[in-house]
Amino acid sequence: MHFADVLPLQSGASIRAYDLSYETYGTLNADRSNAVLICHALNASHHVAGVYLDAQGGVVPKSEGWWDTMIGPGKPVDTNVFFVIGVNNLGSCFGSTGPMQRNPDSGEIYGADFPVVTVQDWVQAQARLLDALGITTLAAVMGGSLGGMQALSWTLQYPERVRHAVVVASAPNLTAENIAFNEVARRAIVTDPDFHGGHYGRHGVLPQRGLRIARMIGHITYLSDDVMNEKFGRQLREVAIGHASGYKFSTQDVEFQIESYLRYQGDKFSEYFDANTYLLITRALDYFDPAAEHGGKLTPALARARAKFLLVSFKTDWRFSPARSREIVKALLDNQRDVSYAEIDAPHGHDAFLLDDPRYMGVVRSYFESKVTPC
Amino acid sequence: MHFADVLPLQSGASIRAYDLSYETYGTLNADRSNAVLICHALNASHHVAGVYLDAQGGVVPKSEGWWDTMIGPGKPVDTNVFFVIGVNNLGSCFGSTGPMQRNPDSGEIYGADFPVVTVQDWVQAQARLLDALGITTLAAVMGGSLGGMQALSWTLQYPERVRHAVVVASAPNLTAENIAFNEVARRAIVTDPDFHGGHYGRHGVLPQRGLRIARMIGHITYLSDDVMNEKFGRQLREVAIGHASGYKFSTQDVEFQIESYLRYQGDKFSEYFDANTYLLITRALDYFDPAAEHGGKLTPALARARAKFLLVSFKTDWRFSPARSREIVKALLDNQRDVSYAEIDAPHGHDAFLLDDPRYMGVVRSYFESKVTPC
Repeated sequence: MHFADVLPLQSGASIRAYDLSYETYGTLNADRSNAVLICHALNASHHVAGVYLDAQGGVVPKSEGWWDTMIGPGKPVDTNVFFVIGVNNLGSCFGSTGPMQRNPDSGEIYGADFPVVTVQDWVQAQARLLDALGITTLAAVMGGSLGGMQALSWTLQYPERVRHAVVVASAPNLTAENIAFNEVARRAIVTDPDFHGGHYGRHGVLPQRGLRIARMIGHITYLSDDVMNEKFGRQLREVAIGHASGYKFSTQDVEFQIESYLRYQGDKFSEYFDANTYLLITRALDYFDPAAEHGGKLTPALARARAKFLLVSFKTDWRFSPARSREIVKALLDNQRDVSYAEIDAPHGHDAFLLDDPRYMGVVRSYFESKVTPC
Repeated sequence: MHFADVLPLQSGASIRAYDLSYETYGTLNADRSNAVLICHALNASHHVAGVYLDAQGGVVPKSEGWWDTMIGPGKPVDTNVFFVIGVNNLGSCFGSTGPMQRNPDSGEIYGADFPVVTVQDWVQAQARLLDALGITTLAAVMGGSLGGMQALSWTLQYPERVRHAVVVASAPNLTAENIAFNEVARRAIVTDPDFHGGHYGRHGVLPQRGLRIARMIGHITYLSDDVMNEKFGRQLREVAIGHASGYKFSTQDVEFQIESYLRYQGDKFSEYFDANTYLLITRALDYFDPAAEHGGKLTPALARARAKFLLVSFKTDWRFSPARSREIVKALLDNQRDVSYAEIDAPHGHDAFLLDDPRYMGVVRSYFESKVTPC
């Protein structure tokens, strides 16, 4: 959808005109009361559920939406009941206006000139999309990780437009350690000689070295120590002939399976993800902090919220630990809000929010069935 | 000290001749029974204690040894009682033979051709240094982190030569997550265009970009989440004028103090540390695994040890967690060994082993006074 109106940004800059890519699933009901907006995290997109078909009508392999376990007919967020909207955020690289596209003012590819966007800016742009779709009030806004921050921000920016907010594996802001991991990833990208200050597009190159490192760092923080040990442990990639230890004794070759896995993830990511988008999205994470304008106090910051809430966290998530979700729960309870909270004992770390854990799916299903479903 | 004899390595390669840099503190007693060997971790050296003096006899600023809080006259490892030896490991970049030096066979700088060395190799080389110093039996061998692995390996490679082993903030092997962090750091170095396959010396450049990233990653894992939050939290580097949020809204500038700290640490490290050494030392960490040749079982692996042990871990150390030290304690107890164990409730993460915590210092002091001191 094209938007011709200027979008003023939190930074003071603005975007003159922009497109948002979105997908919808299910049917908007007559009183437009069954819309559920899904907000995405770092490297996801508007393609939330379902599969794509090729020209012959066959299913494109691996084309499942990133939350396809959660959203669809008969699934926890049931598209037989709800009208679900997935939207790609501004600054991303999957269709919505972002650094890979041309600045309408200059005709040049934005690159590093794309303005810094924040969670608040994304929510504002999403609200305009809902306006255009004729949806005044959301049955629910829902997201995991950075998507959960957007869901929380919706309840503060547009308290009257949200009946329910489902905030999964999220946090009221990043810790110093979270910011530190983001910063190392950004430095890997920015100091890649192919980055060219963010204008690699003009030089016909891509800072893939930096992107690989960034993704490898990210991947470590998405998984739990336990699940890594269970999945890879100290298993070697292949046993070298002639060494009783099985080691190849090389500093540069792959020795352990975890190394092979991380290199593969880094390579894959560097082929489809835009480096400037990575910088923008990690900065949006860093900046999110609704308590900041209340002296760091979350309770007054969340006083504006009118929605009912479901919060979900995962015990082994050390990126956005359960303690961070509990901070949100406490601040909402301090404000006498209606809050459900589930802490799932899943082994998968932060990644658990994307996986098909039956307890997790059950919690979301029962919340939607018992509380969100329009009467 | 120069060694003219070939050192056969665990990999099957060998080093034809080599030097080891070492320092000693205190006096070797008449029966040569008061020697304590200190093994160093990743970026440390033989300069364990004391300060250096300049030509005028003044103290060189910041020249304290890396374990100066622990070792010296009247300190927990009291050099009025013990003869302490610090030795720089092979492959390091602080004086002992390593990748920055010339291969005597080719006359070329070793660079990437320096052979892969392991904890076992280091211990073997250290044993030759003790032979040369006329020391048959150590009162104690002691180290933290990778240094603790060397201390543990001493008790297995030379069980008759070690009376006590003090193993601090260490582990019986690396977890998949540990290896993963090492691998990302190595990839950052190896994919730096200035790395030149490890022969940057021949090109007159240094892979400083990669080293910076490697050090930044390392630093995050040395600190606890709590201590980072306490020290830096979400504090901004400087407040920009005109934005209520205090943000500059930049993806590349420093916004948060933690970013500034990490960049500084990365810059500093990249100026003094050798990239090939970084690869070698992280690989030595990855490879260490005494249980491997016993089907992954630590109890039979440690059956050879004859020493008495003190193990120390730190509650907030998530790099080498207390659970890893407890694995060693359990395996030693299974073998009816004499083991003391202290788990210190210090907030500083893995870094705690280098810091001056009174409980930690007290534990080591009392162990040395009551158990190690020669009668």
